[in-house]
Amino acid sequence: MRYKVTVSYDGRNYAGFQSQINALAIQDVIEAALFRIFSEKIRIIMSSRTDAGVHALGQVFHFDSDKEKEPGKLKYSINSLLPDDIHVKKVEIVPESFHARFSVKKKTYEYLINTGEYDVFLKGYAYQCFYPLDIEKMKEGAKLLTGRHDFTSFNTSSLKEYPDQVREISEFSIRKKGKMLKITVTSTGFLRNMVRIMVGTLIDVGRGHKTLDDIRRMLEEPSKGTRRYNADPNGLYLKKIFY
Amino acid sequence: MRYKVTVSYDGRNYAGFQSQINALAIQDVIEAALFRIFSEKIRIIMSSRTDAGVHALGQVFHFDSDKEKEPGKLKYSINSLLPDDIHVKKVEIVPESFHARFSVKKKTYEYLINTGEYDVFLKGYAYQCFYPLDIEKMKEGAKLLTGRHDFTSFNTSSLKEYPDQVREISEFSIRKKGKMLKITVTSTGFLRNMVRIMVGTLIDVGRGHKTLDDIRRMLEEPSKGTRRYNADPNGLYLKKIFY
Repeated sequence: MRYKVTVSYDGRNYAGFQSQINALAIQDVIEAALFRIFSEKIRIIMSSRTDAGVHALGQVFHFDSDKEKEPGKLKYSINSLLPDDIHVKKVEIVPESFHARFSVKKKTYEYLINTGEYDVFLKGYAYQCFYPLDIEKMKEGAKLLTGRHDFTSFNTSSLKEYPDQVREISEFSIRKKGKMLKITVTSTGFLRNMVRIMVGTLIDVGRGHKTLDDIRRMLEEPSKGTRRYNADPNGLYLKKIFY
Repeated sequence: MRYKVTVSYDGRNYAGFQSQINALAIQDVIEAALFRIFSEKIRIIMSSRTDAGVHALGQVFHFDSDKEKEPGKLKYSINSLLPDDIHVKKVEIVPESFHARFSVKKKTYEYLINTGEYDVFLKGYAYQCFYPLDIEKMKEGAKLLTGRHDFTSFNTSSLKEYPDQVREISEFSIRKKGKMLKITVTSTGFLRNMVRIMVGTLIDVGRGHKTLDDIRRMLEEPSKGTRRYNADPNGLYLKKIFY
């Protein structure tokens, strides 16, 4: 029996999704809940690692068990064992051919920037920007990053482990709603820290620390040596995974 | 020199605004910051006590000091000493005739109810409602409460301390935006727990535990004996004080 689970979480209190040696990860908390329900060690396969502090509206994982549970009841059971910053939104029984990571068609991330005054209700939920941003320039930068490119300069995955760092971004939009800047990025695949580094680069462009030509150069001359700025994880949301 | 200060806070970590013997209040934290700036004990006069867990977008207080500070700089100094869940939005120098409590013309509170599925990002910031609500009935109930009435049945202020419990509500609106119900109440004055008890009563009406006739009766036959339900403080926001 293969179960597909869609989960949301407030990432502030965790060292990311994936289990680690010395810190509490969201995976640990979920596996502990599943152990209590299935009375066996369940290993979950996630679609995306998310970094410490990163949030999710629709992270997906799968796991296998011989025990059959009704999806609605299982969702309820898991949620009753989870802390209030992790919440299962959906449980489905899927064919064995489904794989949370390998079956992904595309993923959408969202990044929030508060360009207004500091807001106590956004602490931990948006990047607080204290300097003026040239949003039109940022939009031009996002346009340059859209499409199929070698993103070597825009991530921290090693070239040894991931020799092919060409990815395709199908959507890179920046919208302003009130004082909030909402950046949405969709791609068939992302490399390590790729969204945060792209957003960090656009922030640098918006405040005049980098130019559009710098982005062009980073794309045309892929290099791990470029000075990069990894935007605050608390602004980042794994929004949706498409299968 | 009289200073008027507008402040926002996330109320989850405090025992309300007003100082208490055995718990940390927002007033204590603000007075500690002012002590460091003015090097003298400053007593602040708030416009409204807010209960433990209640939030504020625009609480107002005043205080006096012989020391003159430039308002913009003072705002910056206070904020640099405050924790990240309390934030001063504005500092003004006002005439001695201004009083944070006695000069109030009206106040607006907002109450948020999430009628959708549990949302990790709303925990502590909206009341999570797990049962269906008849919103049209709630709107009719709000209409009954609007205007000038004896609100004895709808608050916990003692009749001994507040013999006149007639108040006038000028606005009581309920709007739905997506899954969120936003209740806005404006009055020249509120009694203790009045907003939370009125909202609790409307929730009771919405889920069929009380009728519109019950509201009529509570208004026509004022009594402290009525069974009342004090809605979750985490859904309540002191939004704006008008002078």
